[in-house]
Amino acid sequence: RRFVSYQTKDFMKAEIAAIKAVAPDLPATINMMPAFYNLNYTDFADSIDIASWDSYPDWHIRGKLDDHLRQAYRTAFWHDYFRTLKKRPFLLMESAPGLTNWKEFNKLKRPGMDRLAALQAVAHGSDSVQYFQFRKSRGSQEKFHGAVVDHVGTDETRLFGEIRRTGETLKTIDEICGTMPRTKVAIVFDWENWWALDHASGFKLRDKGYKATAEEYYRFFWERGISVDIVGPQADLSSYRLVIAPMQYMATAETIENLSSYVEAGGTLYTTYTLGMVDGTDLCYLGGFPAGKLKEVFGLWNEEIDTLYPEECSHVTLNGKSYEGKDYCEIVHARGAEVLATYASDFYAGSPALLRNTFGKGKAYYQAFRDSGAFKEAVFTEIVAELGIEAALPLPLPKGLTAHTRYDGETEYLFVENYADTAVTVPLGNTYLDLESGESISEASLNAFDIRIFKKL
Amino acid sequence: RRFVSYQTKDFMKAEIAAIKAVAPDLPATINMMPAFYNLNYTDFADSIDIASWDSYPDWHIRGKLDDHLRQAYRTAFWHDYFRTLKKRPFLLMESAPGLTNWKEFNKLKRPGMDRLAALQAVAHGSDSVQYFQFRKSRGSQEKFHGAVVDHVGTDETRLFGEIRRTGETLKTIDEICGTMPRTKVAIVFDWENWWALDHASGFKLRDKGYKATAEEYYRFFWERGISVDIVGPQADLSSYRLVIAPMQYMATAETIENLSSYVEAGGTLYTTYTLGMVDGTDLCYLGGFPAGKLKEVFGLWNEEIDTLYPEECSHVTLNGKSYEGKDYCEIVHARGAEVLATYASDFYAGSPALLRNTFGKGKAYYQAFRDSGAFKEAVFTEIVAELGIEAALPLPLPKGLTAHTRYDGETEYLFVENYADTAVTVPLGNTYLDLESGESISEASLNAFDIRIFKKL
Amino acid sequence: RRFVSYQTKDFMKAEIAAIKAVAPDLPATINMMPAFYNLNYTDFADSIDIASWDSYPDWHIRGKLDDHLRQAYRTAFWHDYFRTLKKRPFLLMESAPGLTNWKEFNKLKRPGMDRLAALQAVAHGSDSVQYFQFRKSRGSQEKFHGAVVDHVGTDETRLFGEIRRTGETLKTIDEICGTMPRTKVAIVFDWENWWALDHASGFKLRDKGYKATAEEYYRFFWERGISVDIVGPQADLSSYRLVIAPMQYMATAETIENLSSYVEAGGTLYTTYTLGMVDGTDLCYLGGFPAGKLKEVFGLWNEEIDTLYPEECSHVTLNGKSYEGKDYCEIVHARGAEVLATYASDFYAGSPALLRNTFGKGKAYYQAFRDSGAFKEAVFTEIVAELGIEAALPLPLPKGLTAHTRYDGETEYLFVENYADTAVTVPLGNTYLDLESGESISEASLNAFDIRIFKKL
Repeated sequence: RRFVSYQTKDFMKAEIAAIKAVAPDLPATINMMPAFYNLNYTDFADSIDIASWDSYPDWHIRGKLDDHLRQAYRTAFWHDYFRTLKKRPFLLMESAPGLTNWKEFNKLKRPGMDRLAALQAVAHGSDSVQYFQFRKSRGSQEKFHGAVVDHVGTDETRLFGEIRRTGETLKTIDEICGTMPRTKVAIVFDWENWWALDHASGFKLRDKGYKATAEEYYRFFWERGISVDIVGPQADLSSYRLVIAPMQYMATAETIENLSSYVEAGGTLYTTYTLGMVDGTDLCYLGGFPAGKLKEVFGLWNEEIDTLYPEECSHVTLNGKSYEGKDYCEIVHARGAEVLATYASDFYAGSPALLRNTFGKGKAYYQAFRDSGAFKEAVFTEIVAELGIEAALPLPLPKGLTAHTRYDGETEYLFVENYADTAVTVPLGNTYLDLESGESISEASLNAFDIRIFKKL
Repeated sequence: RRFVSYQTKDFMKAEIAAIKAVAPDLPATINMMPAFYNLNYTDFADSIDIASWDSYPDWHIRGKLDDHLRQAYRTAFWHDYFRTLKKRPFLLMESAPGLTNWKEFNKLKRPGMDRLAALQAVAHGSDSVQYFQFRKSRGSQEKFHGAVVDHVGTDETRLFGEIRRTGETLKTIDEICGTMPRTKVAIVFDWENWWALDHASGFKLRDKGYKATAEEYYRFFWERGISVDIVGPQADLSSYRLVIAPMQYMATAETIENLSSYVEAGGTLYTTYTLGMVDGTDLCYLGGFPAGKLKEVFGLWNEEIDTLYPEECSHVTLNGKSYEGKDYCEIVHARGAEVLATYASDFYAGSPALLRNTFGKGKAYYQAFRDSGAFKEAVFTEIVAELGIEAALPLPLPKGLTAHTRYDGETEYLFVENYADTAVTVPLGNTYLDLESGESISEASLNAFDIRIFKKL
Repeated sequence: RRFVSYQTKDFMKAEIAAIKAVAPDLPATINMMPAFYNLNYTDFADSIDIASWDSYPDWHIRGKLDDHLRQAYRTAFWHDYFRTLKKRPFLLMESAPGLTNWKEFNKLKRPGMDRLAALQAVAHGSDSVQYFQFRKSRGSQEKFHGAVVDHVGTDETRLFGEIRRTGETLKTIDEICGTMPRTKVAIVFDWENWWALDHASGFKLRDKGYKATAEEYYRFFWERGISVDIVGPQADLSSYRLVIAPMQYMATAETIENLSSYVEAGGTLYTTYTLGMVDGTDLCYLGGFPAGKLKEVFGLWNEEIDTLYPEECSHVTLNGKSYEGKDYCEIVHARGAEVLATYASDFYAGSPALLRNTFGKGKAYYQAFRDSGAFKEAVFTEIVAELGIEAALPLPLPKGLTAHTRYDGETEYLFVENYADTAVTVPLGNTYLDLESGESISEASLNAFDIRIFKKL
């Protein structure tokens, strides 16, 4: 997979070089796709000028709000990934007007959703909204794919009206172009680790769940309107207060050094089961997991990993409260680390489920099991408070509502997004200028599937 | 697919020609199969003398009466298709004595069912009952396929007794040979439309449900003992009071003209969602769906189609009553048509779900959504009453019981069929001669899985 | 399949011959696998000196005790098969320390289970306990497969401790080497019949269930601590009081003769639906099932077989009590046999479901349907009592507990095995010496997943 990814990048570089030879000032981009397994995009970043991608989420999936919200935060995760890639605004290169034609069930976006999806990209740092396609073709594979102009050929369709309104909103927020969020949290997403985990014969054989797990950790922050960068394992972490590196199974010498020195210098690192099992050539580390120095950083030894059947669950106690887990339970021995949570069931009851170690000036958390969601909320609520990481809006937020900010060095722009199918009003905690109406406000009302954009006063 | 079907037909014609060259008086047939996807049998009709087919339904499927009855009406649909093909009696070429050996579960036909299945063919216009196979082979693939004579080699088996009784019945009804039903209802079944829908990238991607939908419309008539012809889209429709053309997505210029002029001349045409989207070369019609003149025939414009997940359902109100739907909901605008039913849920609540337009001397119905059964019953009960289309027996009929008639120009023959697993007695509404017993009767008692055959007096 | 199996055996013989040419005293074995479909191991037996096999059951499957116990008796079935193969102690060639790495879910064996699984083999006649693998490799496919020594490289792991304890137990029971159980019950397991059934087009097309059915009959005996041999269809049956030949669909002339003469000489033979349908070349027998002489041995004619959908069940009455069945119901006519149970539902209600015939000095049972478990328990409880076949411990046994014996001609050794996840105490019915503690005892306490080994005094 490294070979294929490298060769593809090499080919891309040759194509860029051919164009730059005659037009050196043209910026180069490629239209990337979310979670595109075969290409390690993180490795492509230095060879392109602007990141851009094609976003086609399944909104309203199965008619259930929770499934719909999962699409919202997964899409947000990839917006953030592509923004982090070049550390500058990206472009939404493609998106579906109204509906797609190639999914198992090609559902219409509900009123408002097309505009919300378009402007979600902008909320996360896109400087464009672009559609595939402008006009439906008469024939072939994509003749039923959503388009700005339908087969009927007029501008009188419901969808044309929605897109016209998106365009009107974009006109009023032109000054946001070029601005970026200020992020204090990073999640490590590592293509090589993803490949290595998937190819490991062991654990749950066919679905290790690396991508879904990374997105699950992301969800906590998305639900609270806290900006996140999605970084590679060798990224400069020094600007982050909190770094989460879930399931960092493959830990190269460079990754170990990068993570360890981040903690040593005062960072807070949160990682999980399967940490540091193999090196960059997929050979297991000897001498006990996690590899080498990580044992000191985290102050523990991971002896065994138990894999649960889907019908089973684990139980963990944290601060006197009980939480459920699934899939994986490691049997870990504290060797210096403080035990924050313990298993409450099975033969490993009483052994550590969450540990925290002080290393250098920083702190290193190790979550030994896969939790079912509530545990993450309890743990990160504390960590975020401790680290003074702030949300975009006063908490708690109504279900399905979140917010993101962009900043130009002086002024902050606030995007309030409602992915729920009901209207809602929220206090903003500050006074803002509504860029569309020109009014000053301190609370915002949103329709179902609505987004509003404000400038901080 | 047109090419393969055409080439196969061409090959068949060459084979027939070779035989006719030496035996010009021998009638030619081919043993066709139900819903045989690859061959457009409608296009074969003019090259054969007699239609014949192989019928192997899954009786008693899953031990549930409803699944069993679905087999009954689906089989009836194909009996009617093959009879309509040549507009003359067909031949039941193959059927399984007792059981098959190649299905996932090879269940025995319950007592009576073998005879009922054989004579169902005759009730729908077959002039033969034939079996595969007479005697079980000792070896190979079909050694456990049902046969008139089993491996035991005697005539003392239960099944031999059943088949002997079928033979005795056939002897008493010889005069029915050559007679035909009198049908006032036709359902359009269009192979090219089937292929085009299946290959369309859009809607529910993998199962558009064309065949099942056609069979579902058929069910209403089957359950009430109303004879139906299954016709191609270019068939002469002038003799029918009611024509149903479900999901006529591909509408060639000829099909549009045929359907439009049928309505103009006074016919009643009933069609549904996805009508008239592509032409005969699979290119979308521009200017709004349904294509061209159909917009005037039906008095509407179909703007959008929403696809539902299997977990979702739609709600429709007709005459103050609520009905459920599934899979598809079109957002349609009445442009002259009368709105008979409207959506009661989702963002298209209030928009038309069933419309009726007067065009020329006829009427055109458009059902914008896929219903779950009860809606069809309500709508067609009214339409059938209005058009004076009569059932073979006084309604309502007990569940699982139906009747069909054949007519020789003077005398009517009545087949009363009980597909239910319980005995039943029904009034016949007229006096009949029981062809087997020679008695005059005005009500009929049937065992479970029984059929009786009468001559009208 | 005969060809492939024969060729593989032939190749094996060539390999053995090459070694024996230079080292004639070295015993030859091959590491066989349970239910290995492609090779008829029964046919390999005469060409090897010692049977040995690789045992990798899925303990604790889905966290459910019943699924776990199914693994226990299925593993026991194959231990008994490999012991019967050479009628002498076999070798456990491979087993997984702790866990596997290639299953869908690679769960840790719970404390005790690794030792119990190892010594289960010994209880059934193994003279060895061997592991794959001693030490985990750093790389490649099996790097996460359980090993005695883990990547950490020390002897301080939980699993190393478990295996050390197994070794200590083995030291104390050295005198058991070479001993064998005394079995009065045999189950016929016939590879060629398995292949023939699977390839038969008919019945339930894709899963005839031969192996699972054989294992289901085995379960009755396993749950009661009654030793069983697993024999081929041409085995010498004279030493057994009871022989069960489930689904003996393919009955060669030799098999018919072997089974018939066993009954004639005084044996009790129990067989089922699908008996004697095809000969050794897969041709159906004519003249009625079961084939030829078997009709006299069993005193019946099997006219038809009904296949049920998974949603359906049959009902059978035995001694006034009702039992459920599934999958298959034959319609059988008693021709001399006594009818012990009859169908209570469907159109074959009242016809025989279990028959017993006296033939020569013996008895032949024919079970015409597939039961769901309780029926087998009722029938075999009576048969076993009648034949004076004794269990290793006083009955009834607690769920999950069983026992097996080995015998050196003078002394009996008792293995008491607890596959349940709770501790239990059972009376032994005799006085025994605990080989590990040296104490005399007459009742035994076992932990969850525990095994204890005693010598009869």
